[in-house]
Amino acid sequence: AASSPNDNSEVSSWVTFKGEIFDITDFVGLHPGGNKIMLAAGGALEPFWALYAVHSQEHVLEILSQYKVGELSAEDQLEKSYNDDVSDPYAWDPQRHPALVVNSLKPFNAEPPPEILTEDPITPNTFFFKRNHLPVPHVDPDSYKLEISGTGLPDTLTLTLDDLKTKFAKHTVTATLQCAGNRRSEMNKVKTVKGLEWGRGAISTARWGGVRLRDVLLHAGYKPDSCSLVQHVQFEGLDKDVTGTSYGASIPLHKALSEDGDVLLAYEMNGEVLPLDHGFPLRVVVPGVVGARNVKWLGKIILSAEESQSHWQQNDYKGFSPSVDWDTVDFSSAPAIQELPIQSAITEPEDGAILEKDSDMLTIKGYAWSGGGREVVRVDVSLDGGKTWCVAELRSAEGEEARPLGKAWAWKLWELSVPFPPDMNQLDIVCKAVDNSYNTQPDTVAPIWNLRGVLCNAWHRVRVTVTTH
Amino acid sequence: AASSPNDNSEVSSWVTFKGEIFDITDFVGLHPGGNKIMLAAGGALEPFWALYAVHSQEHVLEILSQYKVGELSAEDQLEKSYNDDVSDPYAWDPQRHPALVVNSLKPFNAEPPPEILTEDPITPNTFFFKRNHLPVPHVDPDSYKLEISGTGLPDTLTLTLDDLKTKFAKHTVTATLQCAGNRRSEMNKVKTVKGLEWGRGAISTARWGGVRLRDVLLHAGYKPDSCSLVQHVQFEGLDKDVTGTSYGASIPLHKALSEDGDVLLAYEMNGEVLPLDHGFPLRVVVPGVVGARNVKWLGKIILSAEESQSHWQQNDYKGFSPSVDWDTVDFSSAPAIQELPIQSAITEPEDGAILEKDSDMLTIKGYAWSGGGREVVRVDVSLDGGKTWCVAELRSAEGEEARPLGKAWAWKLWELSVPFPPDMNQLDIVCKAVDNSYNTQPDTVAPIWNLRGVLCNAWHRVRVTVTTH
Repeated sequence: AASSPNDNSEVSSWVTFKGEIFDITDFVGLHPGGNKIMLAAGGALEPFWALYAVHSQEHVLEILSQYKVGELSAEDQLEKSYNDDVSDPYAWDPQRHPALVVNSLKPFNAEPPPEILTEDPITPNTFFFKRNHLPVPHVDPDSYKLEISGTGLPDTLTLTLDDLKTKFAKHTVTATLQCAGNRRSEMNKVKTVKGLEWGRGAISTARWGGVRLRDVLLHAGYKPDSCSLVQHVQFEGLDKDVTGTSYGASIPLHKALSEDGDVLLAYEMNGEVLPLDHGFPLRVVVPGVVGARNVKWLGKIILSAEESQSHWQQNDYKGFSPSVDWDTVDFSSAPAIQELPIQSAITEPEDGAILEKDSDMLTIKGYAWSGGGREVVRVDVSLDGGKTWCVAELRSAEGEEARPLGKAWAWKLWELSVPFPPDMNQLDIVCKAVDNSYNTQPDTVAPIWNLRGVLCNAWHRVRVTVTTH
Repeated sequence: AASSPNDNSEVSSWVTFKGEIFDITDFVGLHPGGNKIMLAAGGALEPFWALYAVHSQEHVLEILSQYKVGELSAEDQLEKSYNDDVSDPYAWDPQRHPALVVNSLKPFNAEPPPEILTEDPITPNTFFFKRNHLPVPHVDPDSYKLEISGTGLPDTLTLTLDDLKTKFAKHTVTATLQCAGNRRSEMNKVKTVKGLEWGRGAISTARWGGVRLRDVLLHAGYKPDSCSLVQHVQFEGLDKDVTGTSYGASIPLHKALSEDGDVLLAYEMNGEVLPLDHGFPLRVVVPGVVGARNVKWLGKIILSAEESQSHWQQNDYKGFSPSVDWDTVDFSSAPAIQELPIQSAITEPEDGAILEKDSDMLTIKGYAWSGGGREVVRVDVSLDGGKTWCVAELRSAEGEEARPLGKAWAWKLWELSVPFPPDMNQLDIVCKAVDNSYNTQPDTVAPIWNLRGVLCNAWHRVRVTVTTH
């Protein structure tokens, strides 16, 4: 494998490009994109340049060539398949971008680095957080079939991908998805919880293209208000555990049928074919609702009087009082999470950062979102741990600036630029958001702590040190 | 006027009934209804016995007669009219129950005592909080006319009370109304705000009877989706200020037209004719939405591209960052409050109470509610200022136990009975609620402080002392 040509790896940084090795240590300070170049350090440039088209210029290659220090061996240049052991249930998992922060390899769970997360209101597919409960299934799009059945339907309906694309109007919805476990690592600091150690990156936003679930259910013969027995729409994924049990979840029928619900069966993500990690060839997108109900690799839709009986609907993804522990928990006592509460987080600067006061202005960035289509109307930012507050500037994705009431499905990025406060060497930066129901975030994590570490939406805090030259 | 026959008024309590005076000092501890008897101390029993039918028994009078100490003078027995000065704009204000805690007499604003507030999930009309912005108008029900006009309507429609009662189906909705200023007194303790000094009683629940606004708008000729210019439904009250300006407010058209919105034009309150203080003969009830939009003494309904241009919609009832003061406030920068956030408060015991540990059990009571039809799913109560928590029992109004998703318009009362913690002489009791979007209340008041003192939904706290005999 390639190793740094400079043994003092603490101070030098290298990258590879088309089989050549470059020591970019001296270039880092000159890089127009700033520190982001360090995301590629120690590996190949190709996946990053593929995302940032600005690098496709002759003079960029000229600059790079100045830093060449060696060449990769022939063996290192072979493109390595992620996994070629076909007996491995994860054999069909795709390659992923090296900059992702991996929480679990099998199943694959990873989040983007914070500074990439809030670069644009639309998250590139490559960096959209990945939350797989099971191995990525191998689905042949040509033989793929979606099965729709259950109470209130005359028959089982089977649709091919082609049926979905040709028989139904295509709709596009810009929606943020968030894992219930986003920011779980902060709960872990209060008291250990069960679950993946997510930072603040288990949230992303895409433009989803597909057909309305409502249209498909009506096409399947469901007559609204005809059958009060049907209360839930269950989804079954094609991803299975070793016993053959599929991932499953459900949403209320009302959300599925409502013209305002905007629930999609999506086959496109940001204009591209739905990626393998995001449910190829078809997934559910339930705007405003926790990620876990947005079932990927969708195999079956079942109308029912009951919620999904899956583990993930019944005995997971529910919130409890901090007093409830694994000895006393009664999962039937709490509702399955659907709509998520108001949320916000700081993505820049990083906790623990040392900021040089070389300019007069301090810039703080982050995201804010609320479930249920409730629009974020304000983000307050404090530099002194919550004693005084400033109002941040909000930024929506293009075309998402004026959403109908109750249909603000996408987050807003926010930014605050303020002069460095004089005489403060340490800043306790805090953010909190407000949605248009005027819900706000709780101040602290401990009182919302819960044994599964979900729903962590307390004020987000980072502490930074300010130095002067 | 009647005065206590016992000069030591600190320790004696008296009441009057049918012209006689009774010293009930020795009876207070024997009263089956407990301390509530003190609400009547110093005044007439009649208004309380009218509410609590249990007193209509021969032996109750026998008990009372034992405590007789004197008789009222003939002059004191004359029933005093509330207001007989017809030149006073408040001449038509009705008499009110003496137990109400009055914040302002003109206009009349008052809340029920906390222990009455949570006696039952349905608030008696007499005790339902009163929030008048202007004098109660004199409306003759026989000549009353409701006018419906505006963009998207072929003509102005005029309806009499009889039209409303005979041409439209009657609907009943159980809904909690809350003033945006509920709990404002807690914000005042942080820093002075403008507004009435509400305690935690500016919230109440009733069963409202009337017709659906949706039905009336369709009857008036509004064709849904025909006119995208219409975005708001404006309401004008018949109550006017000295310049002749009516109270006004608006709600989004979507809420007004939605079958799930349950917006009523109500002529009944808890099965009675709508009382004068609550908008006789007709008011708007907008479930899940701040009290200020539930316009009373309704005179006009206007469909419009714009929100109401009234002071109360444009320059009041909006939330701001704690950093905004009267010099910097830009009312156009914040949305008019519609749906309210999750809320809860403790009604018993009182802050500052001294509790005698004569039984082993401590009982704590309160209410919890959320806007937008979001159901309260849990109330956590702490005795140690928020370090540890217990889950309270919830209680719904009869028939309101299982509400459709998004239509939980009524509050839940809650109660926690726990053993007195050993070795604690002071309890810092705290409550916080969670709704089915898993929104929670912020921990403290200061970070949600705002110049108008609205939206105070931080954890509610009371401090009590525990003594032993």
